[in-house]
Amino acid sequence: MREDRQNDEIRQIRITPNYLGHPDGSVLIEWGETKVICTAMIENKVPAFLRGKNKGWLSSEYSMLPGSTPTRKVRDISRGKLDGRSSEISRLIGRTLRSCIDLDKIGERTIWIDCDVISADGGTRTASITGSYIALKIAVKKALENGKFKEDPIISKVAAISVGKVGGINLVDLDFREDSNADVDLNVVMNDKFELIEIQGTGEGDTFSVEELNEFLKGAKRGIEDIFKYFEIVEKYI
Amino acid sequence: MREDRQNDEIRQIRITPNYLGHPDGSVLIEWGETKVICTAMIENKVPAFLRGKNKGWLSSEYSMLPGSTPTRKVRDISRGKLDGRSSEISRLIGRTLRSCIDLDKIGERTIWIDCDVISADGGTRTASITGSYIALKIAVKKALENGKFKEDPIISKVAAISVGKVGGINLVDLDFREDSNADVDLNVVMNDKFELIEIQGTGEGDTFSVEELNEFLKGAKRGIEDIFKYFEIVEKYI
Amino acid sequence: MREDRQNDEIRQIRITPNYLGHPDGSVLIEWGETKVICTAMIENKVPAFLRGKNKGWLSSEYSMLPGSTPTRKVRDISRGKLDGRSSEISRLIGRTLRSCIDLDKIGERTIWIDCDVISADGGTRTASITGSYIALKIAVKKALENGKFKEDPIISKVAAISVGKVGGINLVDLDFREDSNADVDLNVVMNDKFELIEIQGTGEGDTFSVEELNEFLKGAKRGIEDIFKYFEIVEKYI
Amino acid sequence: MREDRQNDEIRQIRITPNYLGHPDGSVLIEWGETKVICTAMIENKVPAFLRGKNKGWLSSEYSMLPGSTPTRKVRDISRGKLDGRSSEISRLIGRTLRSCIDLDKIGERTIWIDCDVISADGGTRTASITGSYIALKIAVKKALENGKFKEDPIISKVAAISVGKVGGINLVDLDFREDSNADVDLNVVMNDKFELIEIQGTGEGDTFSVEELNEFLKGAKRGIEDIFKYFEIVEKYI
Amino acid sequence: MREDRQNDEIRQIRITPNYLGHPDGSVLIEWGETKVICTAMIENKVPAFLRGKNKGWLSSEYSMLPGSTPTRKVRDISRGKLDGRSSEISRLIGRTLRSCIDLDKIGERTIWIDCDVISADGGTRTASITGSYIALKIAVKKALENGKFKEDPIISKVAAISVGKVGGINLVDLDFREDSNADVDLNVVMNDKFELIEIQGTGEGDTFSVEELNEFLKGAKRGIEDIFKYFEIVEKYI
Amino acid sequence: MREDRQNDEIRQIRITPNYLGHPDGSVLIEWGETKVICTAMIENKVPAFLRGKNKGWLSSEYSMLPGSTPTRKVRDISRGKLDGRSSEISRLIGRTLRSCIDLDKIGERTIWIDCDVISADGGTRTASITGSYIALKIAVKKALENGKFKEDPIISKVAAISVGKVGGINLVDLDFREDSNADVDLNVVMNDKFELIEIQGTGEGDTFSVEELNEFLKGAKRGIEDIFKYFEIVEKYI
Repeated sequence: MREDRQNDEIRQIRITPNYLGHPDGSVLIEWGETKVICTAMIENKVPAFLRGKNKGWLSSEYSMLPGSTPTRKVRDISRGKLDGRSSEISRLIGRTLRSCIDLDKIGERTIWIDCDVISADGGTRTASITGSYIALKIAVKKALENGKFKEDPIISKVAAISVGKVGGINLVDLDFREDSNADVDLNVVMNDKFELIEIQGTGEGDTFSVEELNEFLKGAKRGIEDIFKYFEIVEKYI
Repeated sequence: MREDRQNDEIRQIRITPNYLGHPDGSVLIEWGETKVICTAMIENKVPAFLRGKNKGWLSSEYSMLPGSTPTRKVRDISRGKLDGRSSEISRLIGRTLRSCIDLDKIGERTIWIDCDVISADGGTRTASITGSYIALKIAVKKALENGKFKEDPIISKVAAISVGKVGGINLVDLDFREDSNADVDLNVVMNDKFELIEIQGTGEGDTFSVEELNEFLKGAKRGIEDIFKYFEIVEKYI
Repeated sequence: MREDRQNDEIRQIRITPNYLGHPDGSVLIEWGETKVICTAMIENKVPAFLRGKNKGWLSSEYSMLPGSTPTRKVRDISRGKLDGRSSEISRLIGRTLRSCIDLDKIGERTIWIDCDVISADGGTRTASITGSYIALKIAVKKALENGKFKEDPIISKVAAISVGKVGGINLVDLDFREDSNADVDLNVVMNDKFELIEIQGTGEGDTFSVEELNEFLKGAKRGIEDIFKYFEIVEKYI
Repeated sequence: MREDRQNDEIRQIRITPNYLGHPDGSVLIEWGETKVICTAMIENKVPAFLRGKNKGWLSSEYSMLPGSTPTRKVRDISRGKLDGRSSEISRLIGRTLRSCIDLDKIGERTIWIDCDVISADGGTRTASITGSYIALKIAVKKALENGKFKEDPIISKVAAISVGKVGGINLVDLDFREDSNADVDLNVVMNDKFELIEIQGTGEGDTFSVEELNEFLKGAKRGIEDIFKYFEIVEKYI
Repeated sequence: MREDRQNDEIRQIRITPNYLGHPDGSVLIEWGETKVICTAMIENKVPAFLRGKNKGWLSSEYSMLPGSTPTRKVRDISRGKLDGRSSEISRLIGRTLRSCIDLDKIGERTIWIDCDVISADGGTRTASITGSYIALKIAVKKALENGKFKEDPIISKVAAISVGKVGGINLVDLDFREDSNADVDLNVVMNDKFELIEIQGTGEGDTFSVEELNEFLKGAKRGIEDIFKYFEIVEKYI
Repeated sequence: MREDRQNDEIRQIRITPNYLGHPDGSVLIEWGETKVICTAMIENKVPAFLRGKNKGWLSSEYSMLPGSTPTRKVRDISRGKLDGRSSEISRLIGRTLRSCIDLDKIGERTIWIDCDVISADGGTRTASITGSYIALKIAVKKALENGKFKEDPIISKVAAISVGKVGGINLVDLDFREDSNADVDLNVVMNDKFELIEIQGTGEGDTFSVEELNEFLKGAKRGIEDIFKYFEIVEKYI
């Protein structure tokens, strides 16, 4: 049993909308001890493969500040190459946010989603996805107000949560210590109809059966329900 | 309905063991029109974080030859950076193969798994995982014979398959054309007890319910059963 | 005349000590609309040129988040090379902080100073130096408490300010709009005896005489006096 | 004396035309234990220096797979820079194939020749040139059939062979063991009139006289005669 | 006291105009034992941010040859990244030369200033700025003669000098041995009205007061006076 | 016919020994309008593959300054990758100079040969090899004098020349204009017994017969005889 919360209870989340002055949309998401700055910036051009198609794109980058981890994280540019894990998470964030937006409705524009982890205590990718949705929401609202977008391109809300098995027990929303000891680790992204957008599960120390997978998904759904409840509060301030 | 196979039928697989002369283990895996060279090479050193711990490591790299795709794929070194998708698949292959081997039994050694796609027609990541398992098996057999390994480190067999929803129909083992049109795409890695090692599902054009996920997993299990049957034949030749 | 402050008045500064959980020392420095996260992390090794000399080192890196500027700032790793301006500022921060610490008193250790600008509105380099001094102070305090350092290596306090000439008028602490229109731009770093540690002045749109330089330095000194007064408050909380 | 072949005898060569599905032309060339995949792909654009000149270009890249050598060959992108030897061979392949094609007859197109060594046992550069010629021939045939090219741009056939001095004896077509012990190593590229296209000779462990050079060239000519004889067979299948 | 010159005396400078055949302007500047090749080359295009504005740009790069320093300087491309110090000096040279030229008078062109240090004995950045001014002057003269420029864009002459405090004594124009032992090091760039263009001062081993700064500036002015006197001789030969 | 020299006559060569202060050996070689700085620096360590074998190594790097060519040559570090041609020439210089030195006689040391072209008018690689031999000779002499080397490791002299066919005429020592128009281009490196160390011939616009190759080699020998005659003069000054 966890000391400070139930096994299927998520940590406290606080989202500060409009955290920064320059981006179209921005938030600071604090999720337990994990803190991520998520920004959405709209650029008036698209990648080469979309030019002239009257369609937009959404691209995402995820990175961790040197001071975000217990041991200093060396910058990618100092190592001379992009961190493989960061690259994988960047692609995940991009895919999941593209699923909640109709790119035909934003014209030939690219929405850049940047997630910069300033403090990491487990769940940085789920916090990034969740925070980015709100940053995107703010940017879209602004673009609708100033006439850049003619109609709302957002199709659904998006939130993400991790679930896993630690010492034989199923836990929702793993912190860093739990994550390090997890035998199974599953990240789940859902929309507000609780349909799956993305699921990534790894048996890091153990395998898992289809029955266990279904148990994990139940926990994930409960966690995501709580996030969407919190969204109702946050959305009043944007 | 597919023209040339059932919706839950996998394409024909042919694995040529000992395809190359130098690596400890190597195969050419031909999976429909997809062809991947998988090699396993044992190096007598470990990454810095494992030194002095009397434990081994398994690392993997995936890449595509320029001529493997319809449009020439520019080499990573010419673009000056590692392809994000290749990086993500490299990490996936490494994780799944590490789950089937006891790294405490190989001493301070690194097993390098390299998957080089020479022709791509969908399913290159699942072919890579499946072929790499056989390459690993060959390398381990050789290491046991020459006394480099004292006991067999392999814990279980591993195979992978893709499943997806195309035009509203569930398909097992998508080729490139199907994959390009898939609304949902799921990659599943299982061991020979049909436990899950890794699951990655994306709603690229659509979302999917938990019920659908369970349907996909049934199709995946059927496909993986066929692969393990084929393994029984291949293993006679290694 | 400025609308909201005197020509020789600095913007409001707020330093949040211990802003992050992992680094030995950390602050969020908010300086008008400019916000920088400064961290100090102590590593138990030194660069090659210092090994075996029983001496430490202090190294610094400065970077800007993509969302910190009006137009999205492309990440260094995406451009494939370190931004020249960032490199120049990194070296400046390192030099000025090394001047305030006795590296013979920290053993064979490297203190890493990281300054990540999360919002830029002029004066990011002076905010970085000023914030880093407090982050360093916190890290040193902790190292003295846990016995890592035997005696306090800090020699003096350090703070930095910009001064410049905009439209013929001398201004202290330029914001972004002022900085963009400055004919002369001077960055001054001083210790708490108001001795110069570093001075960098550029006639971007105009040249300046030695007499004018002395006027600028008077303004800089007044600004730095105010910063040191604020330090007295901040230091109570560290 | 060699055990299994005469000193002026080349190893057995097998060329599999149309080895891959996607490229315009492709072969697998097996030359003793050396195996190289050669592809020719036609791109509808030219480098900047040729734009608007109604002329084409031919560019080549050579690389070795990690499992092609006894010790795993680290990928260029992991080392962060192009291998010098690979770069040199890439340029050689490009130069020699450009000599056998009339670039004025292909329009504003680039023919990309890619040679990927999957197993190396000496003579990889000569196998690459020889195999690439057939890949190019196939690509040209296809372009003539589909009307992309109006007239045949191929001027002559091309083949390459290595000759050298090992332990005082002149050998034709050195394998890896011989090459490692060679005092003189010469690579010769000729057309089907047995005119020289390129010659590269190095006294790695010894120097050589002009008389010896002429002896080497006689051996090279005999080897290339055998290759052109084999071409007559291969060309029936393309 | 210095052995071979007064404390406020600069080393002998020799500038060879038109040192190279290809660039529009070029000099070899020998300054004591420091030798730098400075070139100015005019390119008929501007960076993206200036396109269509009927305005030019001046860009600069500084680098050191491997044999220019006592210990061989590894090339940037071998280390895989631009040297931080070189980057900082490149930016300094560019800024100071832009201050002496009216970029509105050169059309949409970029003037490239390259400074390559072939032998370093202190003062390489001041020699680079000083030599580049003459290279620029030559290039401008040529552009005026061949009609590329309609009117002379040069606003003022530029020269640079270092001053510093070594062992408590103020010195003008430090050589390498002096520079290595300097407690304070100041680089000063002035125009021919002795107005300041750039000033960069660092207390490397000590701090310095505003009074001392003024003393340094007096020394700098005397040194720059001597350089401008020498310019009168050099300008006869260009 | 050439205007200013015979077809088999080399351009005037001037070698300035001890051109730079820091390297063990250095020259400026002026060869017609081509100018190259060649340096030899002895480092007390060897590459990893030679450690503990009581043997030395010789490594070479070749590069061109931005101002050495008619159009400014962009630096490798700005393009982010090593120039292919520079890489090829670096390897050539290294190979040919290793052939003239007994690496068993220099202990565990690396001799670095750096060739930096400051002005290019054809023949930069042959000038680099020729100049580097003298720089090496000077460095060896110094190492023998100060006891770093116990016996002279130099086996033979080395010089290089280009020959080619331009407009149907055989020419020795091609300048840039001739080289650009050459149908055949051959670089020849010989020792002072006129034995071949390296030969590289390319039919860029034409092929060439073995008979023609022999004619080229006669011209090369004549050119190299003249260089060795000039070496007798130069060697008096080192």
